[in-house]
Amino acid sequence: MHPRLQAIYHIRCDPRSIESRAQAIAVEQSVEMPLAAIDDDFVRSDIVGRVEAIADKANGLFEVRISLAAETVGQDPGQLINMLFGNTSLHEDVVLHDVELPEELAKTFGGPRHGLSELRRRVGAPVRALTCAPLKPQGLPPAALANLAKSFAQGGIDYIKDDHGLADQAYSPFAARVEAVTAALRTIEPPGARAAQSVPSLSGDLDTMRAQIALAKDAGVDIVMVAPMIMGFSNFHRLVRENVSIAFIAHPTMAGAARIAPPLLLGKLFRLLGADAVVFPNHGGRFGYSPDICRALARAALADRDALRPCVPVPAGGMTGDRVREMLDFYGTEVMLLIGGALLEAREGLREATAAFVAAVHGYAHR
Amino acid sequence: MHPRLQAIYHIRCDPRSIESRAQAIAVEQSVEMPLAAIDDDFVRSDIVGRVEAIADKANGLFEVRISLAAETVGQDPGQLINMLFGNTSLHEDVVLHDVELPEELAKTFGGPRHGLSELRRRVGAPVRALTCAPLKPQGLPPAALANLAKSFAQGGIDYIKDDHGLADQAYSPFAARVEAVTAALRTIEPPGARAAQSVPSLSGDLDTMRAQIALAKDAGVDIVMVAPMIMGFSNFHRLVRENVSIAFIAHPTMAGAARIAPPLLLGKLFRLLGADAVVFPNHGGRFGYSPDICRALARAALADRDALRPCVPVPAGGMTGDRVREMLDFYGTEVMLLIGGALLEAREGLREATAAFVAAVHGYAHR
Repeated sequence: MHPRLQAIYHIRCDPRSIESRAQAIAVEQSVEMPLAAIDDDFVRSDIVGRVEAIADKANGLFEVRISLAAETVGQDPGQLINMLFGNTSLHEDVVLHDVELPEELAKTFGGPRHGLSELRRRVGAPVRALTCAPLKPQGLPPAALANLAKSFAQGGIDYIKDDHGLADQAYSPFAARVEAVTAALRTIEPPGARAAQSVPSLSGDLDTMRAQIALAKDAGVDIVMVAPMIMGFSNFHRLVRENVSIAFIAHPTMAGAARIAPPLLLGKLFRLLGADAVVFPNHGGRFGYSPDICRALARAALADRDALRPCVPVPAGGMTGDRVREMLDFYGTEVMLLIGGALLEAREGLREATAAFVAAVHGYAHR
Repeated sequence: MHPRLQAIYHIRCDPRSIESRAQAIAVEQSVEMPLAAIDDDFVRSDIVGRVEAIADKANGLFEVRISLAAETVGQDPGQLINMLFGNTSLHEDVVLHDVELPEELAKTFGGPRHGLSELRRRVGAPVRALTCAPLKPQGLPPAALANLAKSFAQGGIDYIKDDHGLADQAYSPFAARVEAVTAALRTIEPPGARAAQSVPSLSGDLDTMRAQIALAKDAGVDIVMVAPMIMGFSNFHRLVRENVSIAFIAHPTMAGAARIAPPLLLGKLFRLLGADAVVFPNHGGRFGYSPDICRALARAALADRDALRPCVPVPAGGMTGDRVREMLDFYGTEVMLLIGGALLEAREGLREATAAFVAAVHGYAHR
């Protein structure tokens, strides 16, 4: 009758105590008090978390499925993560592995406003993989960042994003940076059909981000980058809902390594709240995600589910031009490849290095 | 010349690679690109993170001190945590252990507006420990929660907080709950000098929280609870700064997934951003914090530092009345004791159980 959401936890535990451990989590994530002290019938039958299944995954790892009343979440994304993992995040032996939401809750959150096909359409690339490059390092003044943007654009890059460290610092204020970068991009005759799109990174509180979006819109920008784990789920979702023309790329900063499974957090949940694309550390780069995690993450971002638009996976974190073929073999072409440091190392050859990266992506024939 | 902040990491690492690992973190948390590709003198000398010290803590654990330019943070708390731990949070072998901020940055963030002495003054308790009890379980309608509040107040409790699972659910909307609870408290003749203070829990995005604060103020409330890890540091700080009369109790929900040392995150950083009190899981309860961690956390919340007002430690998470003496011996009286389930288990004896808890706290003679 009342819809429930399913939270799936992975728990390291002595087999003899897994049942009581699972029950304790079901209580912690719902009523957070001794059941014997609860009289209310509705609370007992609906609100208390229910252990639905316990599976032994061997070697001391258990998969526990707990259902929670959807009413406990209401329509608030912050309350969603609070119900799923709030206090249990304080337990070191538990990973939030996956979540299944009732259809109406998925509909409430709504997912990407634009997604893969719109991000492709905006750069005139209906089928191939997309390309992206970052403006960095932080510390450079707006004019220097604008020069980098020029070279990336001349090389034919689709999306040029701020590094996630670029905020509203005195040496490169947000407004001056957006102005300089977008002005520089307007002077470029792009090698392809469409001009490169500037993707400024937002920072600060919700009001500050709103002001930044207004500034960016005035400069002709229609896509921005945000950090959902820093701004908070509720504020991320609000910003998405009140800016219908803006696409959002989500960055994984502060997403932690392992306590919430990356495919769930970065793939499923960021998409659910409205990420049109999601940056994540590709395997074999500077971070420790395995190929299996990366594949599962990309699938969670793209999968046909709950009538949500697909969110573009953006594997990154130390990628190089010579991995383009391998990455496209791995991810297919429903992907945005992001290369930063390896292009910037070309220095005065930045435009040519970028053009070579772009050519490799454009020339790739997907099997 | 330029002020720098110090980030102290604990890293599990092969001794032979700790130097390169430390240097990689210094780069990741600042310019995030190969140093050889950076020409700019200011970036090279100031913006690139610097490994200041590496100490072998034995058994494969190293303490690494990295300094970062304060200019990279600007005045934004979200950018502070982004600079301290953003991408490095994605590495499983690193814990953010401590942070030292330049004085002006601490002044910018400003810390608690009220703190220990004001929270004591508001309930007419200038020297003793404070008492707190939670309204739960979620799922109860406002009238039932108001009845619980009545019993707690009749028992003499200082602060009555919403459980952190109470949001704006259909079965107990925020507005109706605040109205019912505050109305109930107004009917009580308190056993002590002052009436119990209602502490509603805020949820949702920044605007929703602002509306909730306005509602709460109208009902005579001047203290609320928030979850900084769910609302985001920048939004927490903004709410504190724009509501000068409101005190804030910070809840630790979602604080565990990020691998930031609890004394730093819950003690130092929550206080820095304006928490007047901080709830945390006491040792020997439902969570795994050790006595040492709890002691360090309480010290970080209270310590005389950076001219910040003291933030009241609120040990909780499965506490019972028979631990009052032991907890006060451990924490001293600059503390707020929070007991929930153990009181609610008394059911029709709730008022008497509460009175016994309160008497134990009031009767404690600190050595």
